[in-house]
Amino acid sequence: MTVNKDKTEVGFIGLGIMGLSMAGHIQAAGYKLHVYNRTKAKADELVAKGATWQDSPGDVAAASDVVITMVGYPKDVEDIYLGKDGIVDRAKPGACLIDMTTSEPTLAIKIYDAAKAKGLGSLDAPVSGGDVGAREARLSIMVGGDEADFNSVMPLFEAMGTNIQLQGKAGAGQHTKMCNQIVVAGNMLGCVEALSYAIKSGLDPSHVLESVGTGAASSFLLNNLGPKMIARDFAPGFFIHHYIKDMSIAESEADAMGLDLPALKLTKGLYEKIAAAGAREDGTQALIKAYEDQS
Amino acid sequence: MTVNKDKTEVGFIGLGIMGLSMAGHIQAAGYKLHVYNRTKAKADELVAKGATWQDSPGDVAAASDVVITMVGYPKDVEDIYLGKDGIVDRAKPGACLIDMTTSEPTLAIKIYDAAKAKGLGSLDAPVSGGDVGAREARLSIMVGGDEADFNSVMPLFEAMGTNIQLQGKAGAGQHTKMCNQIVVAGNMLGCVEALSYAIKSGLDPSHVLESVGTGAASSFLLNNLGPKMIARDFAPGFFIHHYIKDMSIAESEADAMGLDLPALKLTKGLYEKIAAAGAREDGTQALIKAYEDQS
Repeated sequence: MTVNKDKTEVGFIGLGIMGLSMAGHIQAAGYKLHVYNRTKAKADELVAKGATWQDSPGDVAAASDVVITMVGYPKDVEDIYLGKDGIVDRAKPGACLIDMTTSEPTLAIKIYDAAKAKGLGSLDAPVSGGDVGAREARLSIMVGGDEADFNSVMPLFEAMGTNIQLQGKAGAGQHTKMCNQIVVAGNMLGCVEALSYAIKSGLDPSHVLESVGTGAASSFLLNNLGPKMIARDFAPGFFIHHYIKDMSIAESEADAMGLDLPALKLTKGLYEKIAAAGAREDGTQALIKAYEDQS
Repeated sequence: MTVNKDKTEVGFIGLGIMGLSMAGHIQAAGYKLHVYNRTKAKADELVAKGATWQDSPGDVAAASDVVITMVGYPKDVEDIYLGKDGIVDRAKPGACLIDMTTSEPTLAIKIYDAAKAKGLGSLDAPVSGGDVGAREARLSIMVGGDEADFNSVMPLFEAMGTNIQLQGKAGAGQHTKMCNQIVVAGNMLGCVEALSYAIKSGLDPSHVLESVGTGAASSFLLNNLGPKMIARDFAPGFFIHHYIKDMSIAESEADAMGLDLPALKLTKGLYEKIAAAGAREDGTQALIKAYEDQS
C-alpha cells in the first residue's frame, strides 16, 4: 500500500531550518499535515496553510498514517519515539514511522524493533544537502529498513529529495549518513588548510580557487564554502554543534567496529576547540578559525 | 612578442606520462620541437613525427626559443637549469624558460633570478589534472613570474590546458600547486575513511557512493578514485612517490611560514607508511591500504 495525498495524513515533528522546508514540500504536494514543534511559532506558516497543530509528538502520532521526525539530537529522537505516550505508544495501527534526524544507527535499530513489535513500519532516513537542498527539494535521502515500508512512502521522499536510496536494513540509512559526514570532514580539512596556506604565502585566495576549483582538487565544499571562508562569512547553513554531534556518533560507531579514523578525530577536535571559543552556532565553514591564531 | 608556430622553436625536456602528452599537443599545434629525456626511447614517437632529438638539456636550450621542462624532483630541476652547461648557461638570448614540474617555490625564485640576470624569461607553471587532463589538453596551469613572459607564451599554455592563471610573481605558480595538493590530501582522507567505514559497517560501498557522491560530500576524488578504491584497482594515474614529494614540499614551506597543517602531515605519514610497505609505484588511491590492516 502506497501513500496517497487524498487518504494519507502525515505527521511532521521538528520544524527547524531543514524540517520546515521539508514539511512545506509535503503540504505543497497535497497531503493533510499534523505538526508539532518545541517552539510553536515555527508552525504558524504551515498552520495558516491548513496544517493541524498538535500538542505533543504522541498526539501527532495518534492523528497520522505516516509520522516524520526531524529533530536535533539522538536523545530527542529516543524521547519522542520510545518515551511514555510517545510516537510508538500512540501510533495508529499500520502506521509508518520515519526518522530523518541524523542519529545513532543503534537507536534506529531499537526504534525499528519497538515499531515492528507493534506492527508498525519504521525507517531511518537521514538526509544530505543542507538548508539549500531542503528548500529546493533536492535532498539526498539515505534509507534503512524494510523494502515494503520504503516503497510505501516513496511519494513523500520524492516530495523532498532527488536522490533516494534504500541502503539496507534498519540503521543502514544512519550508517550511510555517517559515511557522508566522514567524507565532509576530510574535504573540510583540505579546504581550510589550503586556504590558510594560500593566505599565509601571500597569494590571492580567491584567485587560487579559480585554479584549484576545477580539477582534481574540486569539491562541493571548496567551491561553495571556500568563498565564505575567504570572506569570513560564518552565517550558518549547517551549525557547528550539529556537525560535532554527527562526528561524535561516527567516531563511537567506528570505535565499536575497531576502526581508527584519525582524520575524523582531527576534524572533530578542531571543531570542538573553536566551539569552546564561541563558534558553536557558526556555520561549519568557520573551521578556518582554527588556523587563524597561528603566528 | 608572442610565440608563433612558424618562427618559434620549442624545447621539451621530460617525456614521462604527463610530459609526453603535453609535448605532443605542442607538436600537433605546429611548433618545431627539440626534445630530451633520460630514457631516449620515450622520444621515438615525437621524433618520428619530426621532433629533433638533442643529447642534453643544455643542447635543447641552445636550439630553442622557449624551453619547457617536466621532470621528476626539485633536484632534477636544479641540475638541468642551474648545473654547468645547463639550460640557463646555454639558453639563446631572449629565450623563455618554463618549468612545469611540481617543485619548490624557493627554487623557482632562484631559477627566475638566474634567468633574469641573463636577460631570459622565466616562469614556474605546474599543472593539475593528471594523466587524463594532460592527454585531453584540459590541464589547469598555475603560473608564477612576469606578466610579459606569461603573455608571450600563452599559445603554448593554451595547447596544453584550459584553465590558465597567472597567480603572481616567481614562485606563485608553485605555491598555488601546493594549495591544490593540500586540498587533495584532505579530500583523499575523507574518501578512504568513509569507504573504510562503509565496508566495515556492512554497507555496499558502491551503493553508498550513489548516495554521497552527489551532495555536500561530492568531490572529483570521491567520484573518480572512490570506485577504484572499492575495486582495489591501484594502477597509477599519479604515483604515490610523486605525491609524497609534493606533500614534503608543502610541509616544508608551511613550516617555514609558521603554519601547522595537521591534516597534511597525517596524510603524508599514511602515504609514507604504505610506500615503505611496497606501494611507492601505486596510484594515490591506494591510500585505502593504510586502513585495511585494522582488525
